[in-house]
This record gives sequence, structure tokens and C-alpha cells, in this order.
Amino acid sequence: MENLNALLHAIGQRKSDLANKDFLLTWEQSRDELEQVLDIAAALKTLREKNIDTQLFNNGLGISLFRDNSTRTRFSYASALNLLGLTQQDLDEGKSQIAHGETVRETANMISFCADAIGIRDDMYLGAGNAYMREVGSALDDGFAQGVLPQRPALVNLQCDIDHPTQSMADLAWLKEHFGGLENLKGKKIAMTWAYSPSYGKPLSVPQGIIGLMTRFGMEVTLAHPEGYDLIPDVLEVARNNATVSGGKFRQVSSMEEAFLDADIVYPKSWAPWQVMQQRTDLLRSHDSVGLQVLEQRCLQQNAGHKNWHCTEELMKRTRGGNALYMHCLPADITGVSCEAGEVEASVFERYRIPTYKEASWKPWIIAAMIVARKFTDPAQALQHRLNVAQPRIKY
Amino acid sequence: MENLNALLHAIGQRKSDLANKDFLLTWEQSRDELEQVLDIAAALKTLREKNIDTQLFNNGLGISLFRDNSTRTRFSYASALNLLGLTQQDLDEGKSQIAHGETVRETANMISFCADAIGIRDDMYLGAGNAYMREVGSALDDGFAQGVLPQRPALVNLQCDIDHPTQSMADLAWLKEHFGGLENLKGKKIAMTWAYSPSYGKPLSVPQGIIGLMTRFGMEVTLAHPEGYDLIPDVLEVARNNATVSGGKFRQVSSMEEAFLDADIVYPKSWAPWQVMQQRTDLLRSHDSVGLQVLEQRCLQQNAGHKNWHCTEELMKRTRGGNALYMHCLPADITGVSCEAGEVEASVFERYRIPTYKEASWKPWIIAAMIVARKFTDPAQALQHRLNVAQPRIKY
Amino acid sequence: MENLNALLHAIGQRKSDLANKDFLLTWEQSRDELEQVLDIAAALKTLREKNIDTQLFNNGLGISLFRDNSTRTRFSYASALNLLGLTQQDLDEGKSQIAHGETVRETANMISFCADAIGIRDDMYLGAGNAYMREVGSALDDGFAQGVLPQRPALVNLQCDIDHPTQSMADLAWLKEHFGGLENLKGKKIAMTWAYSPSYGKPLSVPQGIIGLMTRFGMEVTLAHPEGYDLIPDVLEVARNNATVSGGKFRQVSSMEEAFLDADIVYPKSWAPWQVMQQRTDLLRSHDSVGLQVLEQRCLQQNAGHKNWHCTEELMKRTRGGNALYMHCLPADITGVSCEAGEVEASVFERYRIPTYKEASWKPWIIAAMIVARKFTDPAQALQHRLNVAQPRIKY
Repeated sequence: MENLNALLHAIGQRKSDLANKDFLLTWEQSRDELEQVLDIAAALKTLREKNIDTQLFNNGLGISLFRDNSTRTRFSYASALNLLGLTQQDLDEGKSQIAHGETVRETANMISFCADAIGIRDDMYLGAGNAYMREVGSALDDGFAQGVLPQRPALVNLQCDIDHPTQSMADLAWLKEHFGGLENLKGKKIAMTWAYSPSYGKPLSVPQGIIGLMTRFGMEVTLAHPEGYDLIPDVLEVARNNATVSGGKFRQVSSMEEAFLDADIVYPKSWAPWQVMQQRTDLLRSHDSVGLQVLEQRCLQQNAGHKNWHCTEELMKRTRGGNALYMHCLPADITGVSCEAGEVEASVFERYRIPTYKEASWKPWIIAAMIVARKFTDPAQALQHRLNVAQPRIKY
Repeated sequence: MENLNALLHAIGQRKSDLANKDFLLTWEQSRDELEQVLDIAAALKTLREKNIDTQLFNNGLGISLFRDNSTRTRFSYASALNLLGLTQQDLDEGKSQIAHGETVRETANMISFCADAIGIRDDMYLGAGNAYMREVGSALDDGFAQGVLPQRPALVNLQCDIDHPTQSMADLAWLKEHFGGLENLKGKKIAMTWAYSPSYGKPLSVPQGIIGLMTRFGMEVTLAHPEGYDLIPDVLEVARNNATVSGGKFRQVSSMEEAFLDADIVYPKSWAPWQVMQQRTDLLRSHDSVGLQVLEQRCLQQNAGHKNWHCTEELMKRTRGGNALYMHCLPADITGVSCEAGEVEASVFERYRIPTYKEASWKPWIIAAMIVARKFTDPAQALQHRLNVAQPRIKY
Repeated sequence: MENLNALLHAIGQRKSDLANKDFLLTWEQSRDELEQVLDIAAALKTLREKNIDTQLFNNGLGISLFRDNSTRTRFSYASALNLLGLTQQDLDEGKSQIAHGETVRETANMISFCADAIGIRDDMYLGAGNAYMREVGSALDDGFAQGVLPQRPALVNLQCDIDHPTQSMADLAWLKEHFGGLENLKGKKIAMTWAYSPSYGKPLSVPQGIIGLMTRFGMEVTLAHPEGYDLIPDVLEVARNNATVSGGKFRQVSSMEEAFLDADIVYPKSWAPWQVMQQRTDLLRSHDSVGLQVLEQRCLQQNAGHKNWHCTEELMKRTRGGNALYMHCLPADITGVSCEAGEVEASVFERYRIPTYKEASWKPWIIAAMIVARKFTDPAQALQHRLNVAQPRIKY
């Protein structure tokens, strides 16, 4: 359990502008801002471990808008809201429609009269998810400026077409915990590699989030995928620049074998090529269900040519000391368990099962921290107040 | 921000029987009772603006029963419950069934063991929505009298076949705010007029609610619609009587042009003729889906003959000073924005966009006020207690 | 209203291991443990009647997983969570799938980072519902032991293939209230009998729950059903043993007439034979929808041969003094009201309508009590603390 006073002190010292902007892409935040979110997450987690009520709000709504089914993200967001004292309310706009203009402006205001947070998951349409969030954000800014809204709700990016900041920040918090501090990540080798999956259309936001964030902390990030499974070029550029600035490295290789060599951390996970996601977006927009089926079949065939991208015990032996930390955003496609052939061999997954659960367990705290950083000008003071009052969460 | 002490004093002075009856039609409430609800809404809003926790309940459930999709009403109700400390629980009975007798009595009791409020939206069946609410109400009365229920939940009419009291009262609160007091509404001309929409079957409750309520406050209410778009005759009678009693006026004209002339306020909005709603109800009851399609086609054609019922800049010039207040319950059918041809010209809507948002922003407070008035014998005292304790909503 | 201090004293005196095990079948609990749950339920109910806030949690999630639609159980669970200060979050896994292995382990952990309770209703698959709950339970134990979960959520069996403990315990609480104490149940005759229903596939858990629980309290339990409507043999064995131990009786007869003779309590309710439920489970597993339809038709025909299993006024005259207490878990199939021919004559039901509502009203309190017993090592102390602090639920 981390030292709460040290955490609160650190939170107060950070140079952060998070109270004035939404956290939509990790690479738009300064290093201090990223660390502030990590520290707030750790402080909230520690308070709760001490049975201290973390409700910074007496009441208020947190709105969720999911364009895609998601048990894990849904529960993480619900948990984050609950521990802050907010109540979840779902906005069910229908999955397939992408709203624009007046509809977005109006809806954003209509749902926000009593809202302190809005979490959006919109990862299906390339070029649209993150843009939609920004459109909602500026509608909220306008509503607040015009006196319609008594408060400006925090927007939370629960996964978009470009980044998955709540996942990558939870992954970072887990790495910090596992390796005993951010400074220990400097020089660590992480292999973010494609892996075979029998399903199709998995979003790009996880690998993009990982290479966009881990390059900030001096890590040596290796991206590996079969030919034709490219990520969005702009994000590769972001990763390259980050590595230069942070003193880390970013390189691309063309096999899992090469990526795993001497790796401290491996993250084998399937995704669809961004060109495919682009075609899929066009087909979804034109409601071309036949075209979508054809694309799916083609992609599954393409995937099937790469079953050797499989995180096996044999491959794990190539990592540093043969025991790199295995990571996954879950659920993983486990060979012989959840599918016939998948991303990871059963014995590898089983050995790292509990660590992946712990990795996931950071998500509610990271989401809550993002809301706190956005809604409180002085989050350290607000958390200190919780500590001083020390209301027990479970009452005796 | 209104003076809280004056508001609380006014609330305490009203002669009100609202603690003993459900607020199902505005014209069943006395003028004092209507004003008490406005004042409680304003007091709650002011408390929250001062960051004072408005939770009059430590816990409890508020049940929602929507027979029709509704983002705006759903969020308003959820917001009202949340700010009072109640938690929403949806009763999903299926949209098309109208329950009767033992089913209603049993369900009403089964959901109410820990419930303080039940909000119902039931506007699809003419002759059934308001009647259903009353049947639920008397089941609750009986359950409470017999010792089954430890409390009698407040019923909230979130829109029925006859009235839409949470909308019309929110509209009234907005007019009061905009014109600086109810007394300033006396003699003001309001034009409640039909307008063209490319959709069909819009409920009658909004125009009926407006003419049934605004005639209570000495306003000069003009109702305008094409031939054959009649409202329920009984409600017209209510509006006529109200005007006589309050010293206002109620008249009907047959063009938007005439209605807009010298108007201080215009409310152009589409609805279906009550005779059509009656036929639709019969067809829905007999599950005649072919008949429903035929009726819809016929009505859309009938609508299409009245595209000139369009709130244009040209028409707005006819209003008092050319700048009457434009109102709408939202979402509006905006020409060239949300549809090809609709209720209102885009530039008119855009100029009044923020005012319509502010109009809508009163709804959560009005709903909360209705619950407070029903559940507390002395709402002024309960609100005073909140003010005295002054727990911050957002904690620092 | 029961004496709170006496209740709290009794709760503290019970020898109970409920803090260390899930309450999944009543017959796995000791008599002291059953009584402790009854007492906690009564204490919570009494606190609330005195307008004392019963929220033992400042916040936290209660998860619900319903594999079958259920308005009543859903609201009871939601009410229980709310009165304890927990917020409901639905896990919608899809109704038809039965998860196993890693999927269960992973899901159980992913939803539980901030969860204090998980309520599961899984009554469709014979041999699977209770087993699934145990699988979830051991995943939670493991997650807690491994440091993934900061707390071990309470599992609540909201109805399984074998037992319906929240129903049978609520029924017992009602009998205790009605007859003025558990000791007064000794020697009382209760007739748990099959009754005709025009629907099919009603679960076995209610009759099994009743014969498995009421035999614990020295009651004379008679089970009656037409030939071929057997309950699970193991549960009959449980009932027989219970009766021997408690000094009660358990017998089976083959007509409603015989069962009703001199009965103090009658519980006429339809169910499907366990052999049919077994076939149905096999057909559901093999997704054999034609087979399911054939089975349904065959069973409805079989049912139709037993319309004389009908709780009439005539039959009620055979009970003790002609006025045995009629019980039902609701909703009942009422002849001429909810169906043409059903379980009970309308006049009988109407006379006992309010008592059945009171019977049902115990359910939220029983569910809450089960959660409290599981989560607090010393529930008496926790409840005493609520009484000492005495925060009003409705604030003035």
C-alpha cells in the first residue's frame, strides 16, 4: 500500500491543466498530467483499501454511451462512478448511428443538466469516434458558457478509433506497480505484437494506445505484426517522436520471434489492419451488409494465414530470463480454452492469469482519476479532505 | 439566483393539498399548488447552484415506466431522482400491453416496497394513459391503507394521452424566469400552433398541456392548426374556462399567420389530430399492423398538404417587435437540419437554440418539485433543513 | 413492530458461520443461521419503519445476473441493494449461454473490483444453476485469496434449479409474522400442492424450497401433485430427513383434497415435472427448438388433464376452520382473472390478496439480510451502529 501523504503531496505538486481539458488521447497530455492521473488513481485505491469513503460527490450523474457491447469497460466505468458518488445513466442512442451537428449539440446538453461525467465508447468507425467525442466536448463547452449547464461534465474516452487511454493508463499503472515505479520502466523492452485470433475486426486502439503511451516513459517499444496489419500511420509517427523525446526506442519488426527476443514485457493481441477498418467504416456508413460479410470472410482468411503468430511457451523462452511479463486487455483468445487456435497457449495464459486480472483491476481507478482530475482544480485538496473526514465505506 | 429565504417562505405560505394527491393534470391543481411546485423547483435549483446537497432522501427507489422511447424525459426523471437521493429502477413491462385490474394492483404493490416515486410515460393510447396512472394510484392507496406498503410513492405523470404536466410546468417556469415573474405573464400573447413535420403520430399532450396551463395565468392563448387537426374537445373546454377565471383569453384561429400576429411567445409544433390518435389506439389494441401502416400513410399525406405551416423568419416578423420568444419541447424538426422540410426555419431555431435548451433545463427541477410536494407535508421545512445543514454536493 | 434491542441481542447470540459461506441452499444452513437471517431482516425492516437509514455501505456495487425475466425478483434485489447503500449494475451475459471455466473465472473477477454482492437467477437448466453459482463463488474466493479482489462479494441465490432460498425464507418470515413466532409453526400443517396452470415449464424451485425449509421448523408438510409431476428425488430426501430431525412430518399424497384436509396453510402452485425439466435442459443445450415446441405441447396437454387441481372455495372449506392461510409466490394464475382456468378461484385469491402481498413484501429484507450476514462478521454490531447514529432516511 503506497504512502497516502506522499501521493497527495505529489498530486498537488504536478503542473497540470487537466481541470481545463478532456483527456482524449494520452499524447495530448504532459508527462506531469499523466503522472497526476496515476497518482490520483493510486490515492483513491489506497483510500478504499483503508475503508475510507472515496465519494467526492454527494450525488450527480455519470452518463455512459456505448456504441459497442462491453462488459468489462461498462463495469469499470460503473465502478469508477460509484466510488466517486455518481450514478450511472445509460444513453442508448442506437449503435449504428453517428450523430452530427444540432443532434449532438442538443443531446449533449439535454443529458447534462445534472451530469458530472460522460463516458463514451465509440471505436467502430475509423475517423469518427474521437471526432465525435470532440464534438460532444465543444457542445458542452458552449452549453456551459451560455449558462445552460451549471457544470461542465468531464468527458471520458472509454475507447475510440485512435486511442484507448483508460486501458493504456491502467496498463501503465500495472507496470508501475509490478516494476516498483515509473523510473524502473526506463529501458525496459516491451513487445506489442499482433497475434492470431479466429475473430475479426478487433479495434486498433489497444496497440495504438500502448505504443503511444509506453514510448513516453523511456521504454524500448517493439511493434510486430504480419505484413498488411498496419496501424494508423499518424500514431506510428507519434510513437517515434515520443521515443526520441523520452530517450526510449520505437522500432517495428516483422515476426513475433524477433519482438520477443530479450523482451521484459510481451503484449500479444489481435487487431484488424487499419485499411480494413477504413473499408469497414465505409461499408457500415453505406449500410452494405453484403459487403461487410465479404470483407469479414476475406479478413478471416487473411488471419488464418498467420496462425503461427501464437504466444507459446517456446516463444516465451526467448524473452528476458524466459519470464517476461505477459499482458493482455482481456478477454484473450486462449488456444484450446476459448477457441481452437488463438492468441496464446493455455499454459502461458494460466501462468499469467492472475497478473492479467491485476492489470485489469486498475481500470476503475484510472477512470475515476480522470474524472477527478477534470472536475477538481485542486484534486490533492479534495482527496485530503476525504482522508481527514475518513468516513468508513463499510460502516460498523 | 433567486432569494432562497423568500422562496422558502413562499413555499410555506401556499395553501396546498399536494401532499395528499397525485399531480396528474395541471387543471386539477389550484393556483397556489402550481405556484408551490414552481417555487420548490426554483429552491432546489438554487440550492444546487450554491453547491448544497439537495438529497431529501438518504436512499429509496424511484421507478420509471416508459411505454415509449424517450431520451429527454428519461434523463430529466433520472436527474430529478438523483438530486433527491433516490435511485432509478426501470419497470419494463413491454411497450404495447395495457395492464388492467389485478395485474396493475399486484405490480404496483410489488415494485413499491421501497419506492418513493413512480414516474409513468404512457401517451400512446387515447383514453388509456391517464386512466392507467389513476388505476396505479388507487392500487398504491389501497396497498398503503392495508399495511402492505410502508409509504405511498408519489406518482409522476411523465406524459399521458391528455396532459404533459412536467413539460408545461417546465415551460411555465422558463416563462417566469424569462419575463421576470408570473405577474408579467398577464396579458402576454402566446401562439400555440401546429407546424408541419415529416413524421406522424406526435402526441397531443404538449399543445393540450400548454393551452390548459397558460390560460391559468391571464395569458392570451391562441391555438392554431389546419382543419382536421383538432385537440381533444374536453381540453378545449378546460382552456376556455381557465381563461374566463384568470382574466386571460383563449381563441382558435386557422392560420399560423394570424396566430403569430403581435404574439409575445410562439410555440410551433406538430401533432396528430385526436381523431387519428383514436383510430390509432383502436388499431393498436386490435394489433392491426396493416391498418396502422395505412393510417400512417394517409396521415403523412394529410400532413404534406400543410407544409406552409412553417415557422419562418418572415412569419417571426409579424410577432411583437419581430422578436417573440420561440419555444419548443425539443427535439424540433428543423428545416434543412434534421429534415428536408419541418416545423421551423434553421435560422429561427439557431437564434433561439440556447433559450430552448434553458426551457428544457427546468424539467428535472419541476419533476423533483412534484415529488417533494407529494412526499413532504411541509416541503419548506425539509428544504430549510437542507439549507441549514448545507452539505456540499461536490466535496472539497 | 418488533423490539429492536431484543432482535439485535438475538442476532449477536446466534452461532453463525454465514460470514464465511454463501447461502445457496437453505438446507446447508444451521437452524441458528436461518434464524439469524430472519432476525436481521426484521431488524432492517424495523429500522426503516422508524425512518432510520439502513445503509450499511456508503457505496459499492451489487451485481445482478438474471438468465430469465423477472420483475418481482429484480425489484426485490434492487430494493435490498438500495436500502443497504449499494448500487445495482446488471450483467447481461445473454440468457441462453452457460459459461464455464476461464470465462466464469474471468467474468467473476472483472465485475467484482468494486462489488459487495452478486445476485444470480439461473433456474432454467436442471443441474446447472446452482452449480454455476458455486463456480462463480470459487472464482471469487480465488480472486480474493490472490489479491485481485479487495473484498469477497456475497453471492445471493435469487432462484436456481434446486432451491429458491430468498422466496422460501421470505415465506417463512411471513409465517413467523402471521402466526406470531417460529415456535407457533411447530405442528402446523402446510399443504404444498401442485395446481393447474395454462402455462408450462414453471420451475421446481418454489415447491422444493418450501418442503426443504418448512420441514426444519417442526411443521407437518404435505406434498401433493398428480402422478408424473415429481420433484427432484434428492430434495424429497432432504425434506424427509429434515422432518425427522425437527420433529415435524413430511408426507406425499396424490390429491389436493387430501392435502387440504385440516391444513393450516395451503400453497397451491403449478410446476413442471423434473423429468420434463431435464428433457428441456437437454433440448435447450442442443438448441433443438422443434423439440422444445413438441415438449411444450405435450406438457400443456398433460397439464390439461389436471384442471381439477384448482384451489376452490369448496376445497378451502376442508382446511382447518375453513380458513387456512393461502400462500403464493405471485403472480398466481387466477381463474377468470389472469386466465380462463388456473391455479386458484378468483374469490379465494381476492380474500387472500393482501396477505400474499405482505408475504412478498418480506423478500427485499430477506435478500438484504443475506448480504449483511455474509459481509459482516458481527452484523448485530453493524446494525446497532445504524441505530445509534440514527440518520433519518427521509430528511426533515
